[in-house]
Amino acid sequence: MTPVIDALQYANWSEKIFRQMREGGVDAVHVTITYHENFRETVLNIEAWNRLFERHSDLIFQGFTAEDLNRARQTGRTAIFFGSQNPSCIEDDIGLVEVLHRLGLRFMQLTYNNQSLLATGCYEVEDTGLTRMGREVVAEMNRVGLVIDMSHSGERSTLDAIAHSTRPIAITHANPAAWHPALRNKSDRVLRALTESGGMLGFSLYPHHLKGAGGCTLQTFCDMIARTAETYGVSHLGIGSDLCQDQPDSVVEWMRTGRWTKTVDFGEGSADAPGFPPMPDWFAGNADFPNIAKGLRASGFSEEETAALMGGNWVRFFEQSFGPAEAPLKQVAE
Amino acid sequence: MTPVIDALQYANWSEKIFRQMREGGVDAVHVTITYHENFRETVLNIEAWNRLFERHSDLIFQGFTAEDLNRARQTGRTAIFFGSQNPSCIEDDIGLVEVLHRLGLRFMQLTYNNQSLLATGCYEVEDTGLTRMGREVVAEMNRVGLVIDMSHSGERSTLDAIAHSTRPIAITHANPAAWHPALRNKSDRVLRALTESGGMLGFSLYPHHLKGAGGCTLQTFCDMIARTAETYGVSHLGIGSDLCQDQPDSVVEWMRTGRWTKTVDFGEGSADAPGFPPMPDWFAGNADFPNIAKGLRASGFSEEETAALMGGNWVRFFEQSFGPAEAPLKQVAE
Repeated sequence: MTPVIDALQYANWSEKIFRQMREGGVDAVHVTITYHENFRETVLNIEAWNRLFERHSDLIFQGFTAEDLNRARQTGRTAIFFGSQNPSCIEDDIGLVEVLHRLGLRFMQLTYNNQSLLATGCYEVEDTGLTRMGREVVAEMNRVGLVIDMSHSGERSTLDAIAHSTRPIAITHANPAAWHPALRNKSDRVLRALTESGGMLGFSLYPHHLKGAGGCTLQTFCDMIARTAETYGVSHLGIGSDLCQDQPDSVVEWMRTGRWTKTVDFGEGSADAPGFPPMPDWFAGNADFPNIAKGLRASGFSEEETAALMGGNWVRFFEQSFGPAEAPLKQVAE
Repeated sequence: MTPVIDALQYANWSEKIFRQMREGGVDAVHVTITYHENFRETVLNIEAWNRLFERHSDLIFQGFTAEDLNRARQTGRTAIFFGSQNPSCIEDDIGLVEVLHRLGLRFMQLTYNNQSLLATGCYEVEDTGLTRMGREVVAEMNRVGLVIDMSHSGERSTLDAIAHSTRPIAITHANPAAWHPALRNKSDRVLRALTESGGMLGFSLYPHHLKGAGGCTLQTFCDMIARTAETYGVSHLGIGSDLCQDQPDSVVEWMRTGRWTKTVDFGEGSADAPGFPPMPDWFAGNADFPNIAKGLRASGFSEEETAALMGGNWVRFFEQSFGPAEAPLKQVAE
């Protein structure tokens, strides 16, 4: 059976959520372990994850390679793959790319909304593309097998990263802007460049990225996936739910403002609605993944296509992406 | 053929030395990557090693498991295993034990001459044994597979560590004090407790640990090994040369004084001879390992015993020591 993979979550992790992952049949999740944290703070987050792995070894384990997807199925657990939504974890030190990859980091965004040392975020007015260090870090990420994720980056920076990277990149959590014109959703130009270069788009269920926000129906969401698949091909699409289960609103404040401002930035929210927005009722948490699969079938996808969208396409991407550039690609047994 | 293993070096690493390792038939080396450095500084040292691995991938690679000894032989390279001579790299944070193990640390001394957060060093007047944190860290090192090395520890702390550890420990670089009564050499009581619990002693070639210092002959050294083998059995003995090839004297100063004193501490040296002492002429560097094997044969060891002393015993120890405590022991193919 094809693994079910969610290519982005940032939950308030607990045994309850890990049990819901099992209930929802989620075999692997790319989890955000750090936003604005520096290297040492990121390592503290890894230490906290190590304690979760030790305490809940019957439910989860750390994933490092695509082969861990088989291990997840064979042992009835969820493989947790680490990612960062901002490059602050590598500070100004390119050597930390390899160090964090060794510690299991498998995705890193070049920016989180703002200008970083590497590229421009989607909330800046001016997007100057990849910086000098950005080009060096993209090459180093390519070398070691750390996936470039441009979910929160500006248009030009994203196109630059796709062009400069020698390996396919990912936009782990976003939707087409043509469907819902949020600043975080992606243009046709970006989606075309992404998918034509072998990259992957993970569809987001974060309400600010949905037409109708939390009121978006399952059918509307899955019909959007169907139209996206018609345009770009089904094989470069997956799920990246952006699920922030059980998080208090203080966390979305940290995501948005980190330490870069003394004032309040509401990001995709507003002064009237500063917190996490309410989720669609058909996707309240990890136990609801089977609903998406049902919705995709109802929107006309075959069983095979549905399996590809629910995880199979990410399996292929994980296989191609997590090892050193010069290593031969490994086949994952289904 | 049995691998040749040196269980401690701290050289001024260069292509020249890596080529001498190949010349000397050295299949694996436990290298010190950090003395008094904190975690972030230790990571910088790992980054420097990563650049050496990238630049000299035809000569060396990083070793993580005992299976890498086979890889070394099969690819004609030297496997480099990381170690720390002081626990400052874990700061006051037990979570860094697992993080550094993931980055490849395979040996860690609980002390370097002085009192640490974990135990007492061999130069302190009072040895209070393992501290509260020391007992916790020993258990954590046992859990993840990070070897406890007591080369620079006090007598009581060493006996405490042997008693408290649930896995065999190592004294990677020291000689019997009965042969040469240096403060760093080990008492009969320590060597008995060490070897009876399955631990390993690596014989040091650092001149301050040798009878006659740099003037010690090969035969004197190998006869000492023969007497040690008669007393404790050949199977718990190996080489840990403590070779500091090509290092400037500023490095021995850093080893001895770190940041803990504003005055000069001469350690095993003296005001008249503050630098690195001259090595025996039969062991000037990595190309000279075959001399030791020849000396052991001349001192009466069989070919099989010589192979065990030159690396075979360390192979068994690496197999038993580098994986998580619960994992089944793996066999290494000869």
